[in-house]
Order: sequence, then structure tokens, then C-alpha cells
Amino acid sequence: MLYRLNKFIGKSSKTGPAEEPSANAQLLERAGFVFKYASGLYEYLPFGLAVLKKIENIIRKNLNALSCQEVLMTSLQPKGLWRKTGRWDDMAGVMYQFKDHSGKDFGLSMTHEEPITQMAARAINSYKDLPFCAYQIQTKHRDESRAKSGVIRGREFIMKDAYSFHASQEDFEKFYAVMTDIYQNIFKECGLDSLVVEAPGGSFSKVNSHEFQVLSPAGEDKILFCDKCQKAFNRDLFGAEDTPKCLVCGGELIEKVGIEVGNIFQLGTKYSAMLGCEFTDSDGKKQPVIMGCYGIGVSRLLGTIVEVSHDDKGMIWPASVAPAVAQVMVLSEDDGTKKLAEQFLAQAEKSGLALVYDDRDVSAGVKLAEADLLGLPYRVVVSEKNAGQIEIKKRTDTNTKLVDLAEVLAILNVES
Amino acid sequence: MLYRLNKFIGKSSKTGPAEEPSANAQLLERAGFVFKYASGLYEYLPFGLAVLKKIENIIRKNLNALSCQEVLMTSLQPKGLWRKTGRWDDMAGVMYQFKDHSGKDFGLSMTHEEPITQMAARAINSYKDLPFCAYQIQTKHRDESRAKSGVIRGREFIMKDAYSFHASQEDFEKFYAVMTDIYQNIFKECGLDSLVVEAPGGSFSKVNSHEFQVLSPAGEDKILFCDKCQKAFNRDLFGAEDTPKCLVCGGELIEKVGIEVGNIFQLGTKYSAMLGCEFTDSDGKKQPVIMGCYGIGVSRLLGTIVEVSHDDKGMIWPASVAPAVAQVMVLSEDDGTKKLAEQFLAQAEKSGLALVYDDRDVSAGVKLAEADLLGLPYRVVVSEKNAGQIEIKKRTDTNTKLVDLAEVLAILNVES
Repeated sequence: MLYRLNKFIGKSSKTGPAEEPSANAQLLERAGFVFKYASGLYEYLPFGLAVLKKIENIIRKNLNALSCQEVLMTSLQPKGLWRKTGRWDDMAGVMYQFKDHSGKDFGLSMTHEEPITQMAARAINSYKDLPFCAYQIQTKHRDESRAKSGVIRGREFIMKDAYSFHASQEDFEKFYAVMTDIYQNIFKECGLDSLVVEAPGGSFSKVNSHEFQVLSPAGEDKILFCDKCQKAFNRDLFGAEDTPKCLVCGGELIEKVGIEVGNIFQLGTKYSAMLGCEFTDSDGKKQPVIMGCYGIGVSRLLGTIVEVSHDDKGMIWPASVAPAVAQVMVLSEDDGTKKLAEQFLAQAEKSGLALVYDDRDVSAGVKLAEADLLGLPYRVVVSEKNAGQIEIKKRTDTNTKLVDLAEVLAILNVES
Repeated sequence: MLYRLNKFIGKSSKTGPAEEPSANAQLLERAGFVFKYASGLYEYLPFGLAVLKKIENIIRKNLNALSCQEVLMTSLQPKGLWRKTGRWDDMAGVMYQFKDHSGKDFGLSMTHEEPITQMAARAINSYKDLPFCAYQIQTKHRDESRAKSGVIRGREFIMKDAYSFHASQEDFEKFYAVMTDIYQNIFKECGLDSLVVEAPGGSFSKVNSHEFQVLSPAGEDKILFCDKCQKAFNRDLFGAEDTPKCLVCGGELIEKVGIEVGNIFQLGTKYSAMLGCEFTDSDGKKQPVIMGCYGIGVSRLLGTIVEVSHDDKGMIWPASVAPAVAQVMVLSEDDGTKKLAEQFLAQAEKSGLALVYDDRDVSAGVKLAEADLLGLPYRVVVSEKNAGQIEIKKRTDTNTKLVDLAEVLAILNVES
């Protein structure tokens, strides 16, 4: 994939969105990755979309390895099922709800427990059909009155939601523990260190959910961290307590701020009992299925990576999610230089490398600044000054290196 | 990718949706590819989603080869831009429109001329920035009062919409002709023969759009075809005329019925003039950009393929879009047979083949019927009867073949 910056719809600009001070809102828009269409509504330009797809594929790879099954449910939700669980009214504050032209009620989903439970019910008869886990990567909507923090909190966003179905609490707990590890792998592959945080999540026990928090001053969540036993807790678990102590070891807690990039919940039989998702156990008795639910904010991850990985010149993309491995520029018009550049581009394309080629008619200074702003892992400069060699520089290094064409390709192939 | 039918959320069933007689509605649901959630709302189970993704990737490959740039716009649309073009009111009959909790007006997009024109305007200054084409593959909504024909006409559906931007009508026309060919390639790769049909599309000339029709009795469109010059016309072009003649050669016209799988439009400067999408020409004068628009119904293609490619036993998937290349079953429990099956599955997985493995505890007859219903290109049977060889059968053949393991893999690798 070769992205040419000339005639490109994702052009960079000097300014970010007004009234959006967060680094991700500013840098993603300045670099032409996204465009703020309206409050909480972001459009994805080619680079932004390329990062989203790489994040999605990291998630897919990890979940498919666990034999999770990918599905796609609808965002348009008739009232029916949601009324059965009481969530049509409960969600009224955050769910867009409206009538179609014939007067029927619809909402836009922000989560899918109801439809997935109905879908699973069709596939489950006996305990032999369990366990399984299904997920989707889908656009969700939320009627946010105070959308902010760029793509971190939007009115329309991309989420991965997964739901698991089990015949016993023990089987569920095993899977929940595996998913906890898989989640940390996924964030790690996206270049993020995450903290598993105990959190309240419902009605049937104090701690029945976990959040995955990436520490960042741009976050909205307060986390209390125990230096002694390394456990972390959502501040909300402690109500109005002034100086809460660690719930596990009683140690002192340190307050940190994080961005919640994922969460996992024990649902128990809440939805399965209400919606008739049952299995026949080995004694021939009907039982409601035990469920878990597992979310990752895909577009939110894009913003989080920018929050934790940038400097004053621009973004710094981890190779795993960068829209391309290198930014290429040709800094002279003589025939030898152009020929070397063409050779490089042709061979890079052959080996499947994704590159950004700055073929705009602008100065070297503008191109160098653009490369820093976009923050791809490498910058490659072909210039007549370098006498047949090619200059390569890591975004995170200050030094450049002069190497021959074969070595540039070798370096880029390792990183992509 | 190995899909195991045991513990699978996409189980087949004996019945299709009530009141949906079309082949795609019946077969896709019976085979567990989709689930009709409500009128015009279909959920995609793993096989249905796998086909959608293959169709999407065929489209992407063809458009990327033309240097089209992929973006992603929002489905939630504030009223603002749509009011400027007059389409907020024009679309009121088919666009879901509602207010958020603060009273602001939003609609759910079914097309994106307004936002893409605004997005392009930011990237365009001079004629040197033109031409380019951007596209997205996105979920759209339409308030259909009579949703029918399975996934062919839905209230929520997946569409590829592309928009091109040009400095001259001549440049636009060249691109439009190229896109016409690319569209036919795309449908061909999906296993469909399409007819290019001249159609009315707007206000500034009689024929200013083209439809791509796949002939099928399940279609809703009447097409008049000229046997003499091979041109085809949408019936609507002729108003109330009783016996219309070919608009090109005056020949007799034959009526045919088709499913519209794509359409392309000349937009001229309609949107660019209203929304200020201008370029500076070589004389330094401001001009509105000339635009084209190009749609493909992605989920509709899924249904169309089933309409034209099935028999009384089930679906018949072209290899290019089949969710997997073969359905595998093991018809005995003895150790040698099981070992051979394991060898086959392991080697197939290694070479990246996608397979459906019917590991359910059901009879051979049920498994064979399932394979016909799902309609993958090949059926592979490992049975002790076959003394170390493996039985392979094409879905479209009646004969089976006994070959060794290496040959089965070779056959499947060619087709996938």
C-alpha cells in the first residue's frame, strides 16, 4: 500500500479542532487522520482508518485464537427485547430513541446483551452446546451531552463487544481469567501497558467487573493503586470514604488517573433468565445460561495511543498499529535520485510494505515536519547528497543512518 | 480458519423466516448465515459475516488498484449540512430523523454526498489537487415501510459508496468509464454477470446514471434490453410509453427483471456549488468541483449471489466469496480414520485454508445434507471405508473422487 500525499483527501492542517485541548484531538486532526464533524462525531480519513483496522485485526487475531466466533448485530434496535429486560427505560438517557414513519419505536444500540442472548438461545439446547463466545466489531451510539477528549468519548464510536455462554459458574470463571490475560495481550500489542482494575458493575456482588486502564493524565477515571499487593481499584468502589485502604491486603492506596480502554463483566444469569436462554443440564433440567461480557473501545484505543505516545513534534506510532511503516521523501529532482527512489518504492511495494510517500511540491522542511507530525516508525530520505545511499531514521531516534537500498528494505520488513 | 459446527452460534435450522419467500431469505437463515431480527433487520452469523468480508475485500482490492482512498464517515448526521442542500426535507420519507436529549436534530445517513463534499473541500485548493476518489464501506439505514426480499432490501444494510472529484467534465467522464468497467469486474469476481443499464438519475440530463443489474426473477427492477445493439435501459426512462424502442439504435426491446447491485451517478457541480467545494483553475479562477458518485450494495450482493446460485438442496457459493473452501466430515470413529482426519485438518490449517468441520454428534445423512445446504465449493469426507484415501466432491458435481491427502490439499489450495 502506497499512500501518496499529493491529491490526498487526508491532508494535514496547521490547526486542530477548537475547544478540544486533548493531544489526540489536536494531533489526529492536524495530521489528517480524523476530522471532527460535530461534537462527539469523528470522521476517519485514510490514515485514521488504517490504524483502526490494525487495532481491529489485533483484537480479531487474539479472540480467534481463543475460538471466539465473530458475528455482526444491528445498530437499529426495535424496542421489544429491550423492554423485556427493562433497559428500554433504563438506557433512555444515553440511547438515541425514536419512532419510524409508521410509529414503531427504535433505539440505536450502545451494547448488545439483549440481541446476543436471543441469538445464543437459538444455538443452545443442552450443556453439550456450551461454552462458546461470540464477538462483534461494530459502530455504537451514545447520546453524550458532554462529548469530549477527541475520539476517546464520542457519540458514535467503534467497539468490540464479546459475550460468553457457560453451563457453570466455574467454567465461566476460568474463561473470564483467560480473557483478562488476552485483554492485556491485546493492549500490549497496541503498544499500551494496561492496569487491571477491580470495579463495581452491577447488583449481585461488590466487585463483579474489571476495567483495563491505561495511565494518562488525559483520563477521566480515578484509580486507587496498592503498591504493596499491586492491586488496583476503581475509586467508585469506596463511596465517600476519605482514606480507603486496599481491599485485598489493607495497604495504603495511591491515586492514579487512567483512560478505560476495556472492561469485562460477570453477567451471571441476568439476561439469560429474562430472555429464556436456557440449556438442559446432564440431569435433564432446564437452567439459565451463565454469561460474561467483554468490551474494548476500538476508536478509543486510537486516541489513547496518541495520548501516551507523542512528543512536541507529533505522534509516535508503535509499528503494530502505524498506518504505514515509513514516510518517504525524495529531496532532489536529478535523474539518479529519482531512479533510486523509484527502485525503492517498487521493491517496497513488491514486499508488501505500507508506505507514505510525500510527493507534494513543498519544501524539504515542510516534508520533514510532516513526517514528525504523522509519526510513522521510520523516515526514509532519498537525496542526491547521499551518493546512492538512502537515509533512514527512526521516529524515536535523533540520529539518521546512511545505508544501501537492500538494508533499508530489510529494516522496514522487520518492523512491519 | 477452522469453523467447528459443534458449539457454533451459527447453527442451521429447518425453517426460514415466515413471510419471506425469497431464496436468499430462506436459505441464508436455514443455513445459519443470517438471522432475521425484525422486518428489514438482519443479524450476520459467522458464515454470513465471512461472505460479507470477502465481498468487501474484492471491492477494496479493485478500488485500491484505481488509487481510490478509503475513509469512514459517521452514520449519525446533524441536520446542518443536509439543510444546506435541501435534502433534510427531501429525504424525510426514508431517513430516520430524530432529536437528541438536548433537542438537536439528527438523521441516520443512507448516502454521504454532503459530508464527503465538505471533507473534500478541505483537501482541495487548486486544480493540482484533482482528481481523486474516496470511498467507504459502511452501515446505512433507510426507513423502509415494506422491507422484503431478505437481505436484498433492508432497513439496515452495508454499502460501499465512493465519490470522485474532478477539475473538468472530460476528466470526470474518463473516470466514470473506468469505474463502469471496474464495477463489472467486481461483480464478476463475486460470481455475478451484470448488465449495465442506462437510467435516469437527476435533473440535468435524461440519462445521467447507470445501474448494474443482475438478472433474476427475484429482482424488483424492469429492464428493457436491445438485442440488436446490446444496450439496456431502465423501464422508468420511457414514462408511460407502450412499446418503447431502443434509445440508441431504435431496435425492439425485450423486458427483463433484475436486482440492482450497484449504481453510478453524474453529480456535476450540484453538491460542490452548494457546499463551497471549489478549486482554483489554471487561470486563477474559482470553480466548483465536478463530482461523481458510485454505490454498491454489499449486503445486497450476498443475497443476490444466493438468488442466482442455489439448487433445491441449498446454496452454491462461488469460491471467491465462500465462507470456507470445503466442508469436512469424519464418518467413523476408528483410530486410523481419526488420525487421517487430524493430519488433514492440521495441514490444511498450516496452508491457511478456511474449512468448516462438521464435528457434531449427528448422522452421516444429516452431515451430508448440511454440506449441500451450506454450499461450500467442496465436500471432504474422511471415512474408514476409503482405506487411507479421502473422498472429495465439488458442490456442483454429482461424482465423488477418492484421492490421497496431498491431492486433496492441492485441489483445495487452487480454489481458495
